[in-house]
This record gives sequence, structure tokens and C-alpha cells, in this order.
Amino acid sequence: MKLTCEKTSLAEAINTVSKAVSTRTTLPILECILINVYNDEITLTASDLDIGIKTAPIKANVSETGAFAIEARLFSEIIRKLNGDNVTIETNSDGKTAVIKCGYSEFTVMIQNPDDFPPLQEVEKDFSYKIKQVDLKNMINQTIFSVAMDESKPVLTGELMEIKNNSTNIVAVDGFRISCRRAETPEIEKPVNVIIPAKTMREISRILSDSDEYTEIFITDKHVLFIVNGNTVVSRVIDGDYIKYEQTFTDEFGTKIVVSKNELISALERASLISRDARKMPVKFEISEGKIIITSQTEMGKAHEEVDCTFEGSELKIAFNPRFLIEALKSVEDDNVSIQFNSSLSPCIIKPEEGDKYKYLILPLRV
Amino acid sequence: MKLTCEKTSLAEAINTVSKAVSTRTTLPILECILINVYNDEITLTASDLDIGIKTAPIKANVSETGAFAIEARLFSEIIRKLNGDNVTIETNSDGKTAVIKCGYSEFTVMIQNPDDFPPLQEVEKDFSYKIKQVDLKNMINQTIFSVAMDESKPVLTGELMEIKNNSTNIVAVDGFRISCRRAETPEIEKPVNVIIPAKTMREISRILSDSDEYTEIFITDKHVLFIVNGNTVVSRVIDGDYIKYEQTFTDEFGTKIVVSKNELISALERASLISRDARKMPVKFEISEGKIIITSQTEMGKAHEEVDCTFEGSELKIAFNPRFLIEALKSVEDDNVSIQFNSSLSPCIIKPEEGDKYKYLILPLRV
Repeated sequence: MKLTCEKTSLAEAINTVSKAVSTRTTLPILECILINVYNDEITLTASDLDIGIKTAPIKANVSETGAFAIEARLFSEIIRKLNGDNVTIETNSDGKTAVIKCGYSEFTVMIQNPDDFPPLQEVEKDFSYKIKQVDLKNMINQTIFSVAMDESKPVLTGELMEIKNNSTNIVAVDGFRISCRRAETPEIEKPVNVIIPAKTMREISRILSDSDEYTEIFITDKHVLFIVNGNTVVSRVIDGDYIKYEQTFTDEFGTKIVVSKNELISALERASLISRDARKMPVKFEISEGKIIITSQTEMGKAHEEVDCTFEGSELKIAFNPRFLIEALKSVEDDNVSIQFNSSLSPCIIKPEEGDKYKYLILPLRV
Repeated sequence: MKLTCEKTSLAEAINTVSKAVSTRTTLPILECILINVYNDEITLTASDLDIGIKTAPIKANVSETGAFAIEARLFSEIIRKLNGDNVTIETNSDGKTAVIKCGYSEFTVMIQNPDDFPPLQEVEKDFSYKIKQVDLKNMINQTIFSVAMDESKPVLTGELMEIKNNSTNIVAVDGFRISCRRAETPEIEKPVNVIIPAKTMREISRILSDSDEYTEIFITDKHVLFIVNGNTVVSRVIDGDYIKYEQTFTDEFGTKIVVSKNELISALERASLISRDARKMPVKFEISEGKIIITSQTEMGKAHEEVDCTFEGSELKIAFNPRFLIEALKSVEDDNVSIQFNSSLSPCIIKPEEGDKYKYLILPLRV
């Protein structure tokens, strides 16, 4: 193979596929990027068997077509550090090395047999669906933090994508909290539910832009395929039934407050300081007319915070893991949020002041 | 004690002393900041026994004078996250806790007995000397990277400050290279040499500003004291005779080049990519009329780079640890540097094209 292409396009393509490259693997070929060289363009592919990414074609001046695989880390660092506009890559006839040239630089590096590279999963295109890139990106980022870390319930290590007739929910549940984000989506005939691994969702979110352009999604029983700006991402899906999360949300409440998101985050962060391991320490809320008193206490000391709020219903004392509240609040764009409570032992629900774009349910701590 | 002061001044003072706070120590009091409360000002002090820092006084509204010690990490995080302009700190009468108030926040934290805090070393002020802050800062930053990491020769774990009649050298030597930076300094009567621990130099550099204002330095056999913007830094000095570094520099050369610093750094960085541990890999130089060819080779592949240069003397092949060259070149402000060589087995000397503000000597590798 011999090709010349723009350095910046190549660097961008490497960046797109890089997160699908395996870092710890017993299959050295998965530490490589597969480069397919066509008549006047090339594509880059990487895969860790769970997720595979193939870039949109990059324009190239090609004098010999073919394919080769090259160790991703070294290739990425070389391309990034080269000084010049165009990069030429030429493989030697024995198929064992390639020469990379740019400006005054010339690198000779090992390459691998492209036939060893596992092909990307073919995905049948029976069910297709579209969503705005900016919506999907926000939906992922505003829920992904509450995916379960422990693998005892495999379905909870992914995010539920609940595609309804003209809207979509993305849901993440870890046993202590539920995060749900909704967006309007083009009308489809038949609702579909799919559970997508958290890692796939993080990678998709990374390559989605903030634009109103659509990403197309194809879903089968086993796989999901995203087309984002010409790049293809294929992932396995998680088999199983997701939990019935919807029924745990209730519209009834005994206490309701509306509060400044940033003031509440700051007060919770300060109250968390009084602990060497803020993951385990409860903060107590004392909610009454016009204000929330937030307190925490450990062997290190005590914190006492007050946050103004508008108040409806009855006074309430309740305790939470502050991290769960902070993560939900930080993901929200609104300046003010509504929080509903029923009792000291039942979950709170964080919602927008108006509408139903997002909802977060968080279990309290017993203290 | 009870005092009120500006939050930003207090946060800045905490930042100044924080690097002298011990992190791993068997003496818990050294994890604290000592706060001395005077009539209308306070000072903060921290020490790890090697280095001690006392801040310039901060204006405060004081209703009871005294002193207390407070755990540095917690105190620092609380002050940094508080929301409000003024902080009030009041110790309880039993001397075991203090209450920190600011805005709607109130923290109660443990405090320690200030009498347990080791007093800062008194330093006799017989020998005093001044240097511009910006000069001292640059001199440290442009040499500190070549202080010896291994402790087999204790004098080499510090930097030599060589104070002459009207100039000062700061020198660092690690057995593979010598870094030397000179500045003009006000005339003094008697030359003085002192070896200051690298950690002290790093901390001093951190609190020095880029201004032409002077820092005053007091030196004794055992200690050195810096006054920087009203803050006092006291450190032990390293006992012993520094090596006679000066005689290893020579003005004679067989080969001399002048080269663009940035082009040479980039080429060396690229040539270093062909190695999983660039600390150990040699890069080879082939110097001839008008250009340097830089090559490297490992089991991962080969790199070939060319850098333009002006050339004087004879052609030469020589090899270096690229990291040593890169660190010296990166610390230099000039666009072009002069590099002199004598043979493949003798050191190179990096200097400015004109003048003698800095000089770096680097031993070659045998290949």
C-alpha cells in the first residue's frame, strides 16, 4: 500500500477510533488500528470485541490499495507529533513494516496482518431510527453517572434506551438512584427497548457533536449500530429485561421545594468536606418554610449549611448520600430545580420546575 | 481566639504555606497550619522540619489574640469552598475545636495545641544578600531538573548557589549533566557558596513573582532564610563540598552548531517515540554541513529526523539520552542555541549564541 493524506484528518480519525482500541488484551491485533486503503480514500477501524468503530472515509492520494494493521499507541503519537501538512505511508513488500513520512521525519514501524483483525459485526438494518446528536449526547451525559458499577445485575451495567412512538427515554439505575432523560424523536411505528453497555454510551457521547444533525441508529436483538457524522459504531447489546423503573416515580408528594441548583451543590460539597470518604457519609436535611438546613458530622467535625428555597407541604427531616444529589444536580442545565419528598424513608424526586425533560429518583439514607 | 478576615487573603496565605505541610509524617502536628492571632493581623506557619514557611501578616479584625493549629487539608478545602467575602474563626474555650463561619456556612473542626508546633528555626542575619525575584525564579526553573534523584551523594540532591562579588550562579549536577544559570546581582563584599535542598528551591520558585522586586536572603552555616513578598521561608542547607563543576566546561570545540531550539526539541521528541522507555534509549546524531541527522532504533521500529543548522568545524557522530537534551532545551528562552562538541565520547555544551547567561553540559552515550 502507498497513500498520502492530510495529517489533521488522519489525526482526527485516530482520535475517533482510539477509545475502541483494547489496552489490556491477550490478542495483540486488538491493540492495532486497521487501515483500509481504497482507490482515493482510507478508513480506520478499531475494536475491543465489545465495541467497534470505523471512521468515515478520509480522502487520500492512493497509489496501491489494500489493508494493514498498525499498533495504535505508537501510530497515534507519531501522527500527532509530526510537523507537516501531509503524511505518506508506504508498506514494505514483505508486509512486516510500514514507512511513515512527513516533512523531515521518517519512521519505520512494525505492522500486523490485516486478516487477523476481527471484522466489525454486520448489523441487519431492519429497524432504523433517528435522533438529534445534541439530544443523544445530553441524554447520555445526564444519566450515565448512575449506571451500576457492580456487575451482579448485568442489565444495570448498561443504559436502557426506551424508544416510544415519538419520544425516547434514556435510563440508568444503580440500586440507589434512577436517572431518566427524555427527548422528542421522530415518529416510529413500533416501540423498541434496548440496553446498551455504559462503555458504548460513553464513546458514542464522545464522538457526537452538539449539532441538530441526526445520528441514525440500527437495532437488532444482539447489536446496535450508530452512524455519527459518517463514522460507524457497532456494539453488542445487553440481553435481559430491564427493571420496571417507571412505577417507582410518583406524582404525589408531602413536601416540595424549589431551590437554586448551584447553591444546593455548593452547600452539599462543603458539607461533604467533613469526611475522609464522602461516599459513605450522610448529610441531613431539615426542610421547613423558606429554607433547608443541611448538616453533617464525623470524627473530623461538623458542618452546618443553609439554603433558601420555596416550600410547599409539610416540614421534613431526611438524609442522603451527598454524592448522588451532587451528580444529579450537576448534570442539569436549569438554574432552579424542584425536589419532591414523601417521608424520611422514601426517595426524593428531582425534576425541572416545569415539564418532564429529566427526572432523578434518589433513595434516602437511614440515620 | 476570635478573628475575622478576608476569605481571599486567607486562601492565598494557605496556598503559600501548603507545600511546607507534611503529608507523610509520624508527627500529626506537622499536618497542621499554625495560626498566630495578633492585635489586628494573623500569620500562618507550616513546617515539615526541612523547610518552614511563615506568611506575611494578613489584616484581621481580632477580638482575642492567641494561637491555634488546624489540620491543613481540611482547613484549606473549607476556606476554598466557602461562599462569602469574610471568614470568622472562633476557638472554643476548651481549645479543642474552632468554629469557622462564612455566609450561610458554619463548620466546627478539631484544633491542636499550638505549643506542640515546632518553632521556625531562628536564622542569624549576619550575611544578607538580595536578588531580583524574576531572576531567582528563572535560575531555579532553568536548572532544577538536573538535580540528582539518587541520594548517594547528598550534595547533589541540592542546588549550589554560588554568590560572587556581583553575580550569582545556580548549579545542578546529577552525574550525567550540569546545568548552570547566571544572573547579575548587587555587589557584595565576600563570596559565599551554599547548597540548598531541591525541595526548598522548588517551593521558593513557586512563591516568587515575575517582578523586578528583590527577595532578601540570609545565609548561615546551617540554614538559609528567604524573605519573599513579606513571607519567610527557612530551610536547612546541605553540608559538604560541592563538586568542582566549573573545570569540566571548556571553550574549545571541534564541532559547533547553531540550531532552532524548537525544531530540535520536536525532532528529539519524535525520535523518542520509538521506545517504551525513552529514558534509556539513545538517539544518534550525525552532524555535517548544514544539517543534523537524528536517528533512533528499537524493536518497535526506526526514526529518522533532519534538522537544519549552521555548522563550524568537523563532522561528528555522537549519541545522547534525548530526555537530557530536551529538558535543557525546553528551559531556555532563546529561539536559537549554540551546541559545541569535541568528540563522540566527550560532553556537549549548550550555550546562548551570545553571552553566558546559561550553560548546560551533557555527557554522551556510548553506542
